[in-house]
Amino acid sequence: MIKIGILGYGNLGRGTEAAIKKNPDLALTAVYTRRNPEALTINTPGVPVKSAEALEGGKEDIDVLIICGGSATDLPQMTPKYAALYNVIDSFDTHANIPQHFANVDAAAKAAGKVGIISCGWDPGMFSINRLYSLSVLPDGEAYTFWGKGVSQGHSDAVRRIDGVKDCRQYTIPVPAALESVRSGKNPTLTTREKHTRECFVVAEDGADLARIESEIKTMPNYFSDYDTTVHFISAEEMARDHSGLPHGGSVIYGGTTSDGTKHVIEYSLKLDSNPEFTGSVLAAFARAAVRLNQEGRSGAMSVFDIAPAYLSPKTAEELRAHYL
Amino acid sequence: MIKIGILGYGNLGRGTEAAIKKNPDLALTAVYTRRNPEALTINTPGVPVKSAEALEGGKEDIDVLIICGGSATDLPQMTPKYAALYNVIDSFDTHANIPQHFANVDAAAKAAGKVGIISCGWDPGMFSINRLYSLSVLPDGEAYTFWGKGVSQGHSDAVRRIDGVKDCRQYTIPVPAALESVRSGKNPTLTTREKHTRECFVVAEDGADLARIESEIKTMPNYFSDYDTTVHFISAEEMARDHSGLPHGGSVIYGGTTSDGTKHVIEYSLKLDSNPEFTGSVLAAFARAAVRLNQEGRSGAMSVFDIAPAYLSPKTAEELRAHYL
Repeated sequence: MIKIGILGYGNLGRGTEAAIKKNPDLALTAVYTRRNPEALTINTPGVPVKSAEALEGGKEDIDVLIICGGSATDLPQMTPKYAALYNVIDSFDTHANIPQHFANVDAAAKAAGKVGIISCGWDPGMFSINRLYSLSVLPDGEAYTFWGKGVSQGHSDAVRRIDGVKDCRQYTIPVPAALESVRSGKNPTLTTREKHTRECFVVAEDGADLARIESEIKTMPNYFSDYDTTVHFISAEEMARDHSGLPHGGSVIYGGTTSDGTKHVIEYSLKLDSNPEFTGSVLAAFARAAVRLNQEGRSGAMSVFDIAPAYLSPKTAEELRAHYL
Repeated sequence: MIKIGILGYGNLGRGTEAAIKKNPDLALTAVYTRRNPEALTINTPGVPVKSAEALEGGKEDIDVLIICGGSATDLPQMTPKYAALYNVIDSFDTHANIPQHFANVDAAAKAAGKVGIISCGWDPGMFSINRLYSLSVLPDGEAYTFWGKGVSQGHSDAVRRIDGVKDCRQYTIPVPAALESVRSGKNPTLTTREKHTRECFVVAEDGADLARIESEIKTMPNYFSDYDTTVHFISAEEMARDHSGLPHGGSVIYGGTTSDGTKHVIEYSLKLDSNPEFTGSVLAAFARAAVRLNQEGRSGAMSVFDIAPAYLSPKTAEELRAHYL
């Protein structure tokens, strides 16, 4: 049994906990929290909740720590810190800062003889893997990534910060015409606006100026101003009834050419009922790989690019070749 | 530059040659043939065509040999034989015999300190990789593989052997209702007949008994009797005009569950204008990996499961992390 600790018990921590239950060779050993552990009840009976401080000194009896924190401020600190003590894995997703994060984790993990896998989930993660396979097989081609239909938590949070907004759920939606054009192998040039639309469901405070809220959303730089956005004002009851889930998904579509005029289209798509449970499932599979690679004497930072697919499965190489190749 | 030899110059050999041209770090060094080399003209000017006998003794100056032979009789002999002399790669696709083929190549390659990658293409190959990633991430789930719409060369050949048939092109076609059911995440139980239909375009000899030919096709065991098959008789001119290509493709669709009732559907699909050019492109990328792994001191047989995706790309690990993760 591989002993797993989870650090952080938000949506992603709970999603990872659910994923571990589906893997008979993985055991959740403890959940670590920076909050008061006594105030936290988790979904796995009998598993202790401990203070994050218990992780200090590297004395916890775990094979790998899955760090379920945020990419903005948590992971840049936590992953290098704990890579000096345990095998670790995170879902760091600030693309621009990946090289620095990798370097920090690599230095800590190498010095400690541990493995640290960063940026594991679906994007970065499964989508990245598919971009890499496609561009390696068909170097004369282009990758297109579409997200959705699904809830963007970052965009939902941005709307919630607007004066007069009580709650928001923002859906990112690929433009059907763009999808069709890419799937046809035309390799079109597409603007941001041509690829995705955004749809916001907003619960406003009583008496709030709805026209102003809508205008503030639609003109918000970076988040909305480059997109066609639709805003719907709904009641708190409608929000709870119709928008409580965190579905997501998307597609990586790659159009490539071999000989003159000979085209190939590769599409990898995900339809996820729960973004955090799927991300947690990817983390659980790669956590298994981290432990095995470390048992083979490997150390340092790795990404999903550096790990052979066989390491993700509890099945033997013989079983995999006989039944899945 | 990685120096590549191609053994065999049928559809797959020509597809591999086309793929190599798209990779600036790969150089085709020679084509080897069991036919008379002087009777063979290849599509790459300046590259020699040699007798397969030149490969004996391991003296050819190539980094890897891509073996473009058939799985029935060629590859079981050739891949172990040449793995004792060179790094090799093949597209062996007789699923039931993969364990034996792997063992044979492994013994030869290990003894020689070479790498032998077997069963590389799209199925086995890219489809296998996607089955493995999906079942590792979502162990509570099921994989469905659909082939087509595309030309099955084995089925086309089987029809050509019927008395009175001059030519045939057989298309394998997924049943739309089956695809939709699987894509919905229902994880249905499907019979062979429910998953695919078969469509044959047949050029018959003058005066042949068309009703008998159609009946012989539709009742042929293993190939057609478990399927709903449509037969069209066409002229040689129509065959040449409408069916000269070798398009193919298909989908691996995986439906999995995390917590109760929470479903996820992963789909990997290919739409290929040319089956042999795409298969050759996969072989070229994994040939690069074979050379690199051998340079790192690795030897023995491997499958696509054993190779980290980063080995397939000529880009550095830093480039990949910065731009594709």
